[in-house]
Amino acid sequence: MKRLGLLLTIALALAHTAAVAEPLPSWESGPVRSALLDFVGQLTEPDSSTYRPPTERIAVFDHDGTLIVERPLLVQMAFVHERVRELSPAHPEWAELAPFATVLEGDNEVLAEMGFRGTAALVNAAQAGISQVEFRGAVSRFLDQARHPRFEVVYPRLVYQPMLELIALLTASDFRVYIVSSGGLEFIRGLSESVYGVPRDRVVGSVMKYELREEGAALAVWRKTGFQTLNAGSFKVLNIDRHIGRRPLLAVGNSDGDLEMLSYTHAGKGSLAVLLRHDDARREYAYAEDSARVLPVASERDWLVVSMQKDFRQVFPNGDRF
Amino acid sequence: MKRLGLLLTIALALAHTAAVAEPLPSWESGPVRSALLDFVGQLTEPDSSTYRPPTERIAVFDHDGTLIVERPLLVQMAFVHERVRELSPAHPEWAELAPFATVLEGDNEVLAEMGFRGTAALVNAAQAGISQVEFRGAVSRFLDQARHPRFEVVYPRLVYQPMLELIALLTASDFRVYIVSSGGLEFIRGLSESVYGVPRDRVVGSVMKYELREEGAALAVWRKTGFQTLNAGSFKVLNIDRHIGRRPLLAVGNSDGDLEMLSYTHAGKGSLAVLLRHDDARREYAYAEDSARVLPVASERDWLVVSMQKDFRQVFPNGDRF
Repeated sequence: MKRLGLLLTIALALAHTAAVAEPLPSWESGPVRSALLDFVGQLTEPDSSTYRPPTERIAVFDHDGTLIVERPLLVQMAFVHERVRELSPAHPEWAELAPFATVLEGDNEVLAEMGFRGTAALVNAAQAGISQVEFRGAVSRFLDQARHPRFEVVYPRLVYQPMLELIALLTASDFRVYIVSSGGLEFIRGLSESVYGVPRDRVVGSVMKYELREEGAALAVWRKTGFQTLNAGSFKVLNIDRHIGRRPLLAVGNSDGDLEMLSYTHAGKGSLAVLLRHDDARREYAYAEDSARVLPVASERDWLVVSMQKDFRQVFPNGDRF
Repeated sequence: MKRLGLLLTIALALAHTAAVAEPLPSWESGPVRSALLDFVGQLTEPDSSTYRPPTERIAVFDHDGTLIVERPLLVQMAFVHERVRELSPAHPEWAELAPFATVLEGDNEVLAEMGFRGTAALVNAAQAGISQVEFRGAVSRFLDQARHPRFEVVYPRLVYQPMLELIALLTASDFRVYIVSSGGLEFIRGLSESVYGVPRDRVVGSVMKYELREEGAALAVWRKTGFQTLNAGSFKVLNIDRHIGRRPLLAVGNSDGDLEMLSYTHAGKGSLAVLLRHDDARREYAYAEDSARVLPVASERDWLVVSMQKDFRQVFPNGDRF
């Protein structure tokens, strides 16, 4: 992870520099980029009637599909599959046991259809029964080594450059940026600081049950099966209230799981709700089946709808030719 | 709250200034104050072998009895009683129903014995079934108006000046300071920014169950009966891992409910665990019955034990004569 981490730090530093020189360079000029710049400008201009002090400048970003590629599989689901393959020698029974057998046979189409909720047994086998320290190591190895099946690069290179620039602009404008995801808290923390520049304590995610165990004289946190919170839909709002304690001024999402978070944010004065559409099959993917509920609401309430095809000048940090 | 808020902001600003001029002026010179200064100095001195970068500088403070007076009642329990009195006209049945009748009769000795866990019905009646916005208003009014029975000042004036100075020194030294309390999250947030200078998103507390409700076109968070987390003992460590995601370098507590948090922190390299003893009946209170488990561990493991009587030159921000 070290060399990659360095590259990404440089990319992020460049994004920061760019944010000062010419903000949002990977966004196409037009009404979307202007709306983002106006939003930040109006909130941070001390003489403006819409000025908001730094304590109130909260921005929340969904993760999968908003900051990083989520096709053909959620990155975390690719990790779960990899862990199942790694652990399989100790579990000969998995060879004939669904859904483990499907993973071991590598039938990606069946697995993609399965979704996150259909795969509780996989998630528990891959992510529970180990200490947090061990789990963090496994996440780090995966992010350092595993490659995306289509783009053939490690996953941390498949984050969206325009979103990195937006995070950098917000951070430079004294916003506190949080990632609020239905993905696993510790999985996203594996990327948050090195890739997005978002501190570990500004990640709100789904959380497995924990227990405290004694290891020698020391106490360690262990992961148990099952979830203490599945951070999707309404729970995104409830966990924002629990973790942050303020209504965000900016929310960015891409799917029906973000509907409540976007609505809740939009209801606040001077706020902005942003919805990213995946409509670029050439450079990324084109799909809308998981945004059937949120898209009409976005259009009805005049949220800022971003077209990846039209509004992203560049999609990925290292350019879009793979 | 405004005028009080201003006074406290000034007090905090003075504490910050003092931290730069002569750090920890309300701590008596001696081994305890030296140990605190050495700890901060060694971690922040770039040439030191014990240097730690700012991202790793996490400090956690218990709340009741560590930052603020908790006798004769927890501040939050005084709030719960006040709310029950306020709400009682709408509940004539409470006049003959325990534990409500005890509150309405004002039998403080019985109430003090009852403790937090024995009073679930009071807590639910006082703190659930209302929106977060309404609850925050009730907390704010209480903290602005209610007076401590012995000291006869509002509760925010009964925080410990030496701890304010320690928080200010840590903050000036690029630590992130969190309050990790078994008290209610939203109650402590009513004090965190204005009194301690700790942002709302750096409070980890007990959390009642929440639900999302539609209020007109907007979504609002409402409080339900029961707890999603009771943040005491082992749960302090589990919630530190969930909320912060790093082992703290400094933990400060005063009772058995802090044992696991102190142990967990102490197990990390270069860390410091601090235990405050209430041994000053003249200026505050003298009691040890809720630290019977933690005191022997503190002495055995060589934690830093602070005597309020010997190590606090001054207890409260406005001086100690009431």
